Order: sequence, then C-alpha cells, then structure tokens
Amino acid sequence: MTLTAAVVAVGDELLLGDTVNTNASWLGGELARVGVQVVASVMVGDDLARMAVALRRALEDAEVVVVTGGLGPTSDDITREAVAAAAGVELVRDPDLVQELKDRFAAYGYPMPADVLKQADVPVGGSPLHNPVGSAPGLRLEIAGRLLYALPGPPYELQAVMAVVLDELRARSASSLHTRTVHTSGLGEPAVAEVIGQGVAVPEGVALAYLAGGGVVRVRFTGSDDTVVRRLADRAAELLGEHAWGRDDERLDEVVHRELAARGATVAVAESLTGGLLGAALSRMPGSSATFRGSLVVYATDLKESLAGVPGPLLASAGAVSAETAGALAIGARERLGATYGIGATGVAGPTEQEGQPVGTVHLAVSGPGDAVVRSLRVPGDRDRVRLLTVSAALDLLRKQLVLDRVVL
Amino acid sequence: MTLTAAVVAVGDELLLGDTVNTNASWLGGELARVGVQVVASVMVGDDLARMAVALRRALEDAEVVVVTGGLGPTSDDITREAVAAAAGVELVRDPDLVQELKDRFAAYGYPMPADVLKQADVPVGGSPLHNPVGSAPGLRLEIAGRLLYALPGPPYELQAVMAVVLDELRARSASSLHTRTVHTSGLGEPAVAEVIGQGVAVPEGVALAYLAGGGVVRVRFTGSDDTVVRRLADRAAELLGEHAWGRDDERLDEVVHRELAARGATVAVAESLTGGLLGAALSRMPGSSATFRGSLVVYATDLKESLAGVPGPLLASAGAVSAETAGALAIGARERLGATYGIGATGVAGPTEQEGQPVGTVHLAVSGPGDAVVRSLRVPGDRDRVRLLTVSAALDLLRKQLVLDRVVL
Repeated sequence: MTLTAAVVAVGDELLLGDTVNTNASWLGGELARVGVQVVASVMVGDDLARMAVALRRALEDAEVVVVTGGLGPTSDDITREAVAAAAGVELVRDPDLVQELKDRFAAYGYPMPADVLKQADVPVGGSPLHNPVGSAPGLRLEIAGRLLYALPGPPYELQAVMAVVLDELRARSASSLHTRTVHTSGLGEPAVAEVIGQGVAVPEGVALAYLAGGGVVRVRFTGSDDTVVRRLADRAAELLGEHAWGRDDERLDEVVHRELAARGATVAVAESLTGGLLGAALSRMPGSSATFRGSLVVYATDLKESLAGVPGPLLASAGAVSAETAGALAIGARERLGATYGIGATGVAGPTEQEGQPVGTVHLAVSGPGDAVVRSLRVPGDRDRVRLLTVSAALDLLRKQLVLDRVVL
Repeated sequence: MTLTAAVVAVGDELLLGDTVNTNASWLGGELARVGVQVVASVMVGDDLARMAVALRRALEDAEVVVVTGGLGPTSDDITREAVAAAAGVELVRDPDLVQELKDRFAAYGYPMPADVLKQADVPVGGSPLHNPVGSAPGLRLEIAGRLLYALPGPPYELQAVMAVVLDELRARSASSLHTRTVHTSGLGEPAVAEVIGQGVAVPEGVALAYLAGGGVVRVRFTGSDDTVVRRLADRAAELLGEHAWGRDDERLDEVVHRELAARGATVAVAESLTGGLLGAALSRMPGSSATFRGSLVVYATDLKESLAGVPGPLLASAGAVSAETAGALAIGARERLGATYGIGATGVAGPTEQEGQPVGTVHLAVSGPGDAVVRSLRVPGDRDRVRLLTVSAALDLLRKQLVLDRVVL
C-alpha cells in the first residue's frame, strides 16, 4: 500500500511569483522514489489564518504532511506557531537546541540576535530534526495518526534535513511507485497519443500521461509494478520507432553525446540565429570535451563567409537564411573545426521577418562522413522559443543522422 | 479593494516532480501587477475526485479562480469535466470551436485525431477564451458569484490566453499594487540590505524585499502609491552606485545591448566553459545584430590557438584555464571578429577539476578601446550553475567597462 503525502510550501514570495517552488517538484520526485505519492501540493503565504486552513486540509488529504519554509528567525516565520496550533499543543523551548544555536553563532564569531532563539521552540509531543547545514532545525510531530514534518525552506537546507525523513518514510512504505518515460520528437501530442492508444493496452492501476514541451513529447507510465511499467514503455518505444529518442531522465543532448562517444566521433557547429545555444547544449554534458569541438557563432552576415567559409556568391544568391547557407555552414564547421560531424543552423528568430522570410523559418544541415542532410522547417513562438526549438530540432537531426550512419557504416 | 485569487495547476507531472510549476509563479507576479492578490496556489493530479476537492476549496478561498492545465486532447485531460462538475452544469460541444479546430489542422496539413474535438466542449453558461498559439481554447465561467478561468498548461499558451484575462481583471480591480525593483551585482544580500537599511526610510504600507539568485540581488519595493515606490527605488539605485545595473523588468543582457548601441559599439566573444551561452545571452535581445558580432566557442584546447589566436607558448605555460588565456581570448575575439569590445571566458565548469584548478574557477577578460580588464573569480554550484553565473559575471564586467569608457572618452 502506497503512502500518500501532502506538501505545504510557506512564503509570500511563492504567491507573489518571486520564487519558483522548486522544493515542491524536488519533494514530489524524492517522495515517489520511496513509495510516497504526493496527492496535493499547496503554496500559502506567511499568514497564520491561511496556514491553519492549509494544514487542516493537508491533514485531511494525506497520511503524511511535509511543510517547507517559515522556520527562520524573523517575524514573518510562523510555521512553528501554525503547526502547534494545528496540533492543539503549546510550544516549549528546547534547552539542547538553545545550546546548539549559541554554539553555532559562537563558532562563526557572530553575536546572536535574540529572535534566533525562537528556532529552539518545539511543539509539545514533537521532536526536532537536526539541520546539518543551517540554523533552523526541522520538526516532526504526529497529529491524530498523521505524520507531519516541518522543514526549512532554502532548498539546500531542505534537502539536507529531508535525508533522514526519506529514510523513515521508505521504511514505512510497503510499496513504491515506478515511473518509465519515453521521449519522442517529430510528432505532436495528438499523433503520439494516437500511436499509443492504438498499440498499447494500459492495464488497470497504471497511469499514462503525455507531457509536451520544448519541441518534444514525453509518454509516461506510472504504476506499482516496475516490470509491467517497463514493458509498456518498451512497447511504446518500439511503436514510436525513430521518433523515440530516449528514456526516463535522459536529455536529447545526452543521447547525442552518448551516440557520438560510442563511435569516437566529434561534432562542431556553425550557428547564427541560436547565437551559441546549440554549442551550449552540446557542451552541457560532463565529459563533452570528448565529443564537442566548438562552435562558430556567426551572427553577423560577413562572418558567415570570413569565419565559416560560406562562399560569398552563394550568400549573395541564396541569402543568409537559406538551406544552401545552412549546408555550407555545416561543411565549414566540420572542416574548419576538424570534427566528424558539422551542424549548420540559420533562420529568423524574430521579432521581425528577414530577407522576406517569416519569423520561425529555420534551415538546418548536418554534414558528416555519409550523405549531408538539410532540413527546412517552420517553428512556432516568440524569439526565445524559436531559438530553443531550433536547438532541439538540430540535435534531433544529428541524432537521426547518427542512427542512419550506424546502419550504413 | 484588492481582488483575491486562487490558482489551481493541474497535472500528475507537477506532483511527481517532472515539471516545475513555473506557471504559478508567473501568474502570481502578473496577477499582483493588475491588483489581484493570490492567496492560495495548489497543484493537483489528473484525478477527477481530487480536482473536485481542489476546485471547491479554491472557490471558497478567493473571488477569482485560475485553473491551468488539463485542457489538451488526451484522456488524462479532464479539466473541462471537473469545471463543469464544480459548476453543476453539462458540457456542450461548440460548433464554432469545432470549425476552428478543423481549420487549424487543415492549415498545418495534418489529419485531425477524433479526440481533439473534445477541446470544443464548453460548460453551459461558460464561454471559450481564444487561444492564438495552440489548439486548446481556455474557458471562462461564473460560479456562484466567483469568476473561474481555465487556461492551457504549456507556459507559452497560458501566457497568450491570459492576456485578455489580465485586462478583464485589471478593469475589475479597484486598486493595484505597484512594484519597483533595482537590480544589483557585485554585493551579497547582507551588504545590499545594509546599504538600503542605512540610507532608505521605508514608509508604512510599503513592502521591501531582497531577492537573491543567478548572481544578482534584487531590491524590491511594493506599495499602492507608484510615486512613493518609484522614489524609494531611485534613492536605492543612487546609494548602490555602480552596483545597481538596472530596473524592473530589465535583464543584464538588455542593459549591455543598450549601452553598446548608445555608442555605436559592438562586441564579440571567445568562450570556452560556457560553450556558447555568452553568445546566446548577447544575441537574446531583438535587434542584437546591431551590437553582437559573434562568438568563437573554442571548447577544444587546440581551437583556442587556431581559431582565437591564443599564442601556443602562452597556452602551454599559463594553461587553458588562466587569466592570461582569458586575456588572449578577449583580444582574439575583438580582432578576429572585428568588434569594438572582445570578451574572453575560460574556467572549470565541473564536475571535476582541471589543470589542478577547482570547479567554479573562472577567468574573464574584456578588451576594448581603453584598458583591458581581467577578472578571476570562484563561483559556487554545479556545472549548469557555474556556466550561468559565468555569463552574468562576464556581462557585468563588460557593463562596468562600458561605464568607465564613457567617462574616459
């Protein structure tokens, strides 16, 4: 039986949009791994009445409640008070924690503001959770058969204190949830759903989800039996064929890096509209110096000729934004940077059209030991999005070429 | 009187931690700007019973409810059904929306899967919200005097559909909050707080917040009187001097672009550890072709010599990761790409040390018409973070040099 959890993240900065709630996603992933399913995750401001409502609901929703934030020393840190109120108990000052706080400040040679001592308050019946990297200890408390943990808000401290909580929950949870994901490219979400809907029978108890973003669609199966879930993902990948480029936590740049490394090949880039993002993607993996040579970011048109070797007459006749120029950029990158493969990328990122071509026009080319390949496409969105989608499309073009070359060689 | 709002973000991927809920923070910020205060923000999975509970609570909590996600064409997209159930009404298929969907697929030349048509379903009494960038329209519905909007989950589509909703809410909200932000670099949060604490008297009713992240500290004043808030920000910027590099929505790359454009100057880059991210930042602004020439991404050591002109003996003696190499890269970029300014960036992104230098070691240089400047620093974090902080530090170094050169020339 899977345990259920509710997450309550505390802080005005979350509601005002100043801070993105990355703690909630980190907790969701970590809790799922130890067999605890997050069924509700809420954000609430530094307001005692709103927090009381949020804690009451969380205790209704799930067997485990994880609260983050509001354990600091300042006047807007009220999580201790709210938790004690939810449990209907008083706060008492823990002398051991008082001593720890005094020692901590003494060790750093700072005078200790008096407010800091409220961090030593613990609800009656609860116990502190040691914080190895900060001054705010966590709290553990049982309320009417439910388990409540309160943890500090800074991600680094949360993660340090959470280690012992995850161990405790892993021991309590009889089962765990397993997730398998298949990453696809080149198909829209409806088309992917149609392929899966027609070819994969999803049994009771397994959840199927489609996650679209950044030019890729992910197909995710979640269930309690890892063998079942993995088999479903295998079947989905088989049906999706060359559109399925990776699994689980893999990124597209990681797959490209691995495929290049497997054959001792390298890649170089000559890119225009992406301004360096394609090079950045190919150098993101640790160890990418084995597969990535470099990139010529030839943003100014004259540099396409002088640096990347695109012939001047070709630039003049076909234009900087053309399939021909993309092809010449790929060849130039490959030759001038001494790589097995060259990628060329040119296009119109916007916000205005260029050389009479609309925003989103993208020309990509890959030059390698086999045939060169050129792809012209039109991607949606604003400037940032056009650039990001161009990177995905370029990586995917190289990936497909690597697969073809493996067959040919 | 400020309107209150509750945000409900729908999707298993949010609870499982696959997707960070950036929509909630974006909505929090945008709603605050039009005078709507988010008082609760929740995430819920693709589960009809859980969604019913979340919607009921949201309608209790606030005058406006904004739901995002679950409007797609697949079987796990159930927001339409949940909203109709919460309102106690049926869904009816809207013939105009059916036609729009058919036209949309026809325009792209794709066959339309039958499931897509459920995106044309609208609760009785509700109305669709036009989606200019995707196939899922939003919904608008009044439930017992509360206003409910359902919007698509992909951030790009959410933001496009939300524009009209924000206009409507701005008109309804009698008051609005005004926010003025000063961006700083080169000082930690405590140092910034000390400068502000000693020199700026913050009146009752104005909130002051410090937001640190990505190598910058932001100082934010929020209040109902824009004149007051703006004066406070002006005073803060004055006290912070050269550390204050921008205001409100400005990005550092935007300030650099503007400063370059103001003097008809251009910049070129030779970068190693950032792999192209520095070029990407300098080409992010629309119109950056007027100020950005290009970048030599010399990831492989031999390219630092052959492409960027770093002298071989210098590379051999000082090493690829050195202040001397950063200086030579800056000069090489400036000369070989024909720019007014050249930036050189080299360092250790990790995960392992290089040439005996620890992860986070960064050497930057700017070469221009005045004196060249070199800066060596150590930045915290993992590979991704080291690369991002390097970009911020490099842009800031160029910005400061531009300010100095303006004084000199």
